[in-house]
Formats: sequence, structure tokens, C-alpha cells
Amino acid sequence: MEIGFIENIDKKSKPNQNQLGFGQHFTDYMFEMDYIDGEGWVNPTIKPYAPISLDPSAMVFHYGQSVFEGLKAYRTKDDRVLLFRPEKNIERLNKSNARMCIPEIDKELILKAISELVKVDKDWIPNQKGTSLYIRPFVFATDYYVGVRQSHNYKFLIILSPVGAYYSEGFNPVKIFIEQQYVRAVKGGVGEAKTAGNYAASIKAQSEAKEKGFSQVLWLDGAEHKYIEEVGAMNIFIMIGEEILTPELTGSILDGVTRRSTIELLRASGYQVTERKITIDEIIEAQFNGRLKEVFGTGTAAVISPVGEMWFEGQKILINGGEVGNVSQKLYDQLTGIQTGDVEDEFGWTIDISK
Amino acid sequence: MEIGFIENIDKKSKPNQNQLGFGQHFTDYMFEMDYIDGEGWVNPTIKPYAPISLDPSAMVFHYGQSVFEGLKAYRTKDDRVLLFRPEKNIERLNKSNARMCIPEIDKELILKAISELVKVDKDWIPNQKGTSLYIRPFVFATDYYVGVRQSHNYKFLIILSPVGAYYSEGFNPVKIFIEQQYVRAVKGGVGEAKTAGNYAASIKAQSEAKEKGFSQVLWLDGAEHKYIEEVGAMNIFIMIGEEILTPELTGSILDGVTRRSTIELLRASGYQVTERKITIDEIIEAQFNGRLKEVFGTGTAAVISPVGEMWFEGQKILINGGEVGNVSQKLYDQLTGIQTGDVEDEFGWTIDISK
Repeated sequence: MEIGFIENIDKKSKPNQNQLGFGQHFTDYMFEMDYIDGEGWVNPTIKPYAPISLDPSAMVFHYGQSVFEGLKAYRTKDDRVLLFRPEKNIERLNKSNARMCIPEIDKELILKAISELVKVDKDWIPNQKGTSLYIRPFVFATDYYVGVRQSHNYKFLIILSPVGAYYSEGFNPVKIFIEQQYVRAVKGGVGEAKTAGNYAASIKAQSEAKEKGFSQVLWLDGAEHKYIEEVGAMNIFIMIGEEILTPELTGSILDGVTRRSTIELLRASGYQVTERKITIDEIIEAQFNGRLKEVFGTGTAAVISPVGEMWFEGQKILINGGEVGNVSQKLYDQLTGIQTGDVEDEFGWTIDISK
Repeated sequence: MEIGFIENIDKKSKPNQNQLGFGQHFTDYMFEMDYIDGEGWVNPTIKPYAPISLDPSAMVFHYGQSVFEGLKAYRTKDDRVLLFRPEKNIERLNKSNARMCIPEIDKELILKAISELVKVDKDWIPNQKGTSLYIRPFVFATDYYVGVRQSHNYKFLIILSPVGAYYSEGFNPVKIFIEQQYVRAVKGGVGEAKTAGNYAASIKAQSEAKEKGFSQVLWLDGAEHKYIEEVGAMNIFIMIGEEILTPELTGSILDGVTRRSTIELLRASGYQVTERKITIDEIIEAQFNGRLKEVFGTGTAAVISPVGEMWFEGQKILINGGEVGNVSQKLYDQLTGIQTGDVEDEFGWTIDISK
């Protein structure tokens, strides 16, 4: 399908690269495509970034039938533009669509839309260390109807946001709170879909943890409150002895692209990585026995987020003396190196879209 | 706070009362109020019903921080306008707001907004048997920011929709499917909040059940898949012997206004009503012993929805020979009678807003 183009004759001034923050600035263009009942996905268009007008009865406001994705474009030192494993995000977008009863979107069209949009807004990609252009594809229900059912019409948009360095004050370990009261998701629910409601459901726990001085919560499983699931909006890895553990995908955990890349990278470097259920008790026991070596989160925003302390039932679990571990540091350097083109991409993970 | 008013000089023609359906037609006016960071809820206004314009980065599209309510206004035979227990919906709206980290809204202002809006659109309230004016208050996050946190700005709207008789083809029992794969909510989650994500999460199970010929699913608890929770978007009641049971409110079940009214009405009529955990096994056993007398759902849309069959693991549980039971019928007549002013309101549940 050809992507239409409407030129923006009223371009914005670009923000200062040192004050980008995250998700606050948006570029000159966006991609928009509609799903029309009986016609399918139609009118893919790159057009000036502009407000969306919706009837107050639009289903997205009431029943939250929606999914999104998040990935980044990086500017290399030699001015090429790289995407990191976009096909994984596109696969997951359609997996989320299937769970939320939203019609599938052609994979190649999504990749083309992302690539063309990033190219047209290429000047917005920052080049300072740690910066990137965050890409946010999202789909939502647009039927003008107040009643619970799947919508017959949808909108698919892609917007772009230049984002600053996540670790602007250095690559420092975070303090996390192990959440026992609130639950993010449960098997049989929509935890593995990247859908709005999962994030809305996480806000209260996250905000209470922030007030107590923690940067994230570690979610336990919804059924038994016994197995670790995710940390904030990231996947989690635990190094016990020489083995690196991460929760297996049971349906309530997001299948993270950085999680998957971390597993592959670690295995290629000779580490033993096991995906299985992990109880909070065995983490406490490992720390007691001196075998708990490192804990880190993985996600698109932070890439790798080392954990220095976890708090459970008022007790502190100190990890690696509260310092960044070797594995976390090496992973961060390797992954960000591949993403930005500074480290050779042996895995074929990046796509150069500047050609 | 005074509510502003902007006149609509371009009124719509009204739909045929016999073809109203549910949630498809909207009136000439809506209520709108903004929450501005640092200022609170400001500019409450009744204005012409019109599209909302939002930046594509508005948080509601991405993270679903939103809540809604549903209640009805009824036109009596002598042309008065009644609301049914609106204070309960208003209380629940603020309970949902608290769970979703949305700022509380003044209770009296909400009631005033509903009453004035219904009055200005009074001509839209249908008067045929079973019809009413559905009232949909809703709140959603409006920060232009792509990142997971609570929004600093919100919109609160109220829209109105004239709705047809729910039982246009007679008050007939429904067939429900007892869901064992998908889960709606779990303790510690947001199941008791009337928030968009809960409804998005229900669509797949509901749509698969519809394809199998069922009108609703009966949800089991998320942790053990053992206790009954809700049916579709309604609460559920089970009559075993002379006792009427309904699931207790554990945090994953909606605190329904019709549920509460049903309990109070049944108790006032001398029935023993018990709120407790109910296993699916005891329902099957009761049917086997001939003690399962009636099953019905309660909710704003249908008021009372008698259940004729429930299917569990491929087996049919037939209830009262598939016919409407006496208790269901009596409750439906009493509740709809009170709501429409045909039956004396001994409980003081209705508010006449036409005065």
C-alpha cells in the first residue's frame, strides 16, 4: 500500500538537546491510518502533527480498547539512522492487537510507515550521547457508541519524540519496592498485551512507592503473590551464583524486546540464562547465602537499569553493595553500542533506514 | 460552583423512539469541566454536544487513566423526571477516581451537573415503556506526555443517550458461558473501579462466548478460578433453597447500584440474602440436588437479567426449566416500577429533578 504525504508548511523550532527529557516534545509529522468497518485499514498518510478530533462517545474514552508500542531510532556518529529490531515490536503490536480484538495490521506497512516517518523527521533525531528518537505507534477504538463490545473502527497513529539521556546523572542503581498489596496482572488477563489498561492499573502502586522513596515497584504474580513478574514497566533479571534468571513468559508478563536481546546477548557471551518461575523467597535466600550477585531491569527507555536495593516486608535486600554490577554494565555498553552503531552488530539487530 | 451555559443554536432531530437501541444517539448538550494542574477542577459548563480535540500524545490514548459511570433518567407518566440513586454512582465515581489516582470531584457539583444537563435536554427523554435517558459521566487523563505516571490534567464530561427498551422482545432468560480461560480481574488489581481497561480486558472472552451462542460470560476469580465473580458487566445472584446468594465485594467485583438495591429490596421483602464467596462447585451441586432455584444478573442497562442456562466444562446447568423465576420477575417489576414512578418509592431512592 502506498503511503500518502501531506507537507507541513509550519514547522516547529526544535528543543535544546540538553533539556529533552522523555516524551515531552513531538516532531513535525505523524503517521495516521484508519480502519473502516467493511473496508479494512485505509488511507495510510504521513501528515503534519496535529490534534485528533473525536466524538465524546468514541469508544477509546470509555472502554480502553487500545494497544501501543515503543521503540527508538538512533543517529550514528557517521549520520546514519538505525532502528533496533523493529520487527519484534511490530510482531508484538499484532500480538497485542489479537488479544484486544483489534484487526491485524500489515507488518511491512508498519515498518515502511515507521521508516518513512523517521526519515521525514530526520532532523529531529538528536545526536548527543544517550539521546534518541522515541517512536510511539498506537491503535485505539473509534466507534461512536456507548456499550461494551469490540469497536468496528480504529485509528492507528505513529508519533515521534526526541528523548534525552535516561541516565543524565550517571548510570546509577535504583531502589525498588516489592509490591504485596497491588497486582498488575494475572494469568488469563491482558498482562502480556501492551494495552492502556495495564499501565493505568500500575499507577497507584507506582505512585505510592515513589512517595516512599523508591523509583519502581517489583510486581509479584496476581494469584499467589509469590513469584516475581516485572519491575515497573521493565522485565527483570536476577543473577544467582553463575546463573542468570528471568521470569518465564506465562501470559501476564510483557515479552520485552530488550529482555529477549539481553537473553541472546548473555547466552552468546557464555552465560547460563534460565527462563522460569522465580519466587521472592529464593532471592532472599540467595542474598542470605551471599549468592545474589546482580539484579537489573530491561526496557526500551532505560535499556538496562541496575537494581541496588529491593525492599520486602520492611527488610532491605542489598545487591552487589548497591553498586552497578559487571554484567549490568557490560550489557548496557553492548546494547547501547549496537543500537547507536558504536559496537559491531554481530546479530543483525539494527536496520539502517537512512539509505 | 456556578455551571456555565452555552446555547446550542443548531439542534438535532430526534430519533424514532422505537429504534433507539443502546448508546447510539446523543443529545444536543454535554457537560464539560477541566482539571488544570495547580488550579483544580475549573470551568464547569453545559455546552453544545461536539467533538473533543486532543493532541495525539494525550495520555488517555496511551495509558488509559480514566473512569466512567452509567445511570439513567426516567420520564414518569405525569411527565416528571426521576434519577435513581444518583448519589451512589457519584460515590462510586470518586471511589474509582481514588483507585486510578484521578483527583476527586465535588459530589454536589456532579449531581447539579447531571440534573441541569438532563433538564436542558429534557425533550430527549423517551416515554415509551422500558425506554430511558442513559447518563454517561466520564473522566480521562489529558496531559500531552508519553511516559507512565499519573496525569496532571484531566477532562470530566457528561453525555446523554436516549435508549430503547432492553427487553424489546420480551423479558427472556439468557444463556451464559462460565469462563475458565480468561480472567477479568484479580484481588489487588482494579476490578472494583469502573475504569476503561477492565472493559477492554473483557472483550475477547465476551466475543468468543458470543460466537458459541452465549449472551454473556460468567467470570471466575483470577487467583483460583473457583469462585464466581460477575456475569458480563453485571453482578450476579443465585437462589439456592430459600437463600439468595451474591458474591461479596472483595476488590475485584464492581459495587453495583442495582446489586445493592436488589439486596435491600429482597431483604425488605423478607428474603435471606447472603454476601459471601460462592464456588462454582456448590452451584453445580445445588442443581444436582434440585435446590438451585433462580439465577439472575443485575445492572443499570438490563436492571434484572434472568439466567436460564449456564454452561461449565461442556455441561449445561439448567435453571428453573429455562424460564423466568418468580423472584427475578418480581424484582424486575418492582425496580423498574420505582425507577419510572409507577410503583411507590418506599425507600426514597428516586430524585425528582423536574421541579
